[in-house]
Amino acid sequence: MTYCVGLLLNEGMVLLSDTRTNAGLDHISSYRKMFTFEVPGERVITILTAGSLSATQLTIARLQEAIDAPDATGDNSILLAPSLLKVAEIVGATLWSVRDAMDQRLKANGHFGSASMIVAGQRKGGVMRMFLIYPEGNFIEATAETPFLQVGEHKYGKPILDRIVRSETTLDDGKKAVLLSMDSTLRSNLSVGMPLDLAVIREGDCRLSHQRRIEAGDADFAKMSAAWSRVLRDGFLKMKI
Amino acid sequence: MTYCVGLLLNEGMVLLSDTRTNAGLDHISSYRKMFTFEVPGERVITILTAGSLSATQLTIARLQEAIDAPDATGDNSILLAPSLLKVAEIVGATLWSVRDAMDQRLKANGHFGSASMIVAGQRKGGVMRMFLIYPEGNFIEATAETPFLQVGEHKYGKPILDRIVRSETTLDDGKKAVLLSMDSTLRSNLSVGMPLDLAVIREGDCRLSHQRRIEAGDADFAKMSAAWSRVLRDGFLKMKI
Repeated sequence: MTYCVGLLLNEGMVLLSDTRTNAGLDHISSYRKMFTFEVPGERVITILTAGSLSATQLTIARLQEAIDAPDATGDNSILLAPSLLKVAEIVGATLWSVRDAMDQRLKANGHFGSASMIVAGQRKGGVMRMFLIYPEGNFIEATAETPFLQVGEHKYGKPILDRIVRSETTLDDGKKAVLLSMDSTLRSNLSVGMPLDLAVIREGDCRLSHQRRIEAGDADFAKMSAAWSRVLRDGFLKMKI
Repeated sequence: MTYCVGLLLNEGMVLLSDTRTNAGLDHISSYRKMFTFEVPGERVITILTAGSLSATQLTIARLQEAIDAPDATGDNSILLAPSLLKVAEIVGATLWSVRDAMDQRLKANGHFGSASMIVAGQRKGGVMRMFLIYPEGNFIEATAETPFLQVGEHKYGKPILDRIVRSETTLDDGKKAVLLSMDSTLRSNLSVGMPLDLAVIREGDCRLSHQRRIEAGDADFAKMSAAWSRVLRDGFLKMKI
């Protein structure tokens, strides 16, 4: 499995993904699940992927191929698309066409290759938008009422987001919130694993404003995790019922 | 769905269940999911149920029928069984026979009626034991290393248990932990709903030591929920990253 989360805040967008991929419990590897396409200052698009690795890798490769094609147009290249909505449509259609072709063959064995994605971006002069692309290519969009989207193992890390994240949340608090949400997921579910990829896109920057890979054993992450455990433990023990 | 959780602590056992049952989103009702069978001072058995209501109701009814039968024996009555292990076997076999009969008919429509249970109890002179009964009737047991069991929507409420619950946890802290675990689940998942049933079986009591129904709008629960939100929020805001 996977856990990816994206926040759409007034100040910008915060994105976090893990890197664990597993085909069964005895075949574990580490793959990047965060991909950024940008023309710095003009357009930034970050995609987080969950689900069948063969489906997500091929989707990302197809998107890159369409960008690099000499006859690229706004209809097939996410770097030329006239709107973020069109970007979401291109990603959705690409994901679906990859999955559809795969499933024709997989279903003979009773398998299927599901996958979903978070697409976050901004064009110069446009507003930030964030979409969750479903395995069938349709999508929903984050809004002021629901300023976060998750794919993969989303349940363990949802309570903290439900309680903390609002559109007004600052970027620093947003980073803390997604890291703690990931921390709860890492502790409870083996199929989600370090290292992590964290990215921040500040409103108006139209580029990756900040990007960091957090390795297993990262001192800051361990400190934060321990501090949060103390907050929970001390608060818990002090509470009366 | 449902959320039920049981803690096996040195001081005793703490059990909590919600009461929401839904067949689709537009058919919601409230059913008790906690059932206690006891000969006070001699034997206490509490069962928490999750899954298809028709399967769990019929299983509980069959267990009661076997207890009431004039020819009840230690082989079929959970109040006469010579050990808690035998109790788990009777509950598992009953659940499986109910489901097997149901599924013969349901599968014609592509449906099936899954269900699982937590069985917790103690006999005079014996030790406390707690089992998770799977839909097929096989089961696992809580141990000192893993002193809690969950059925139903278990993911939202697992992080708090992972961080807090140990065998040495007191009964009062155990009550707080299961209520906070439920609170996180209630906030994040509509298919789990108030009122709640809380029970405590103190070690050696061999009876329900404490039992409480917590209604929607219960002042103490609301206070605890608000206090926990404050703990999380204040702790979160104070943390540096």
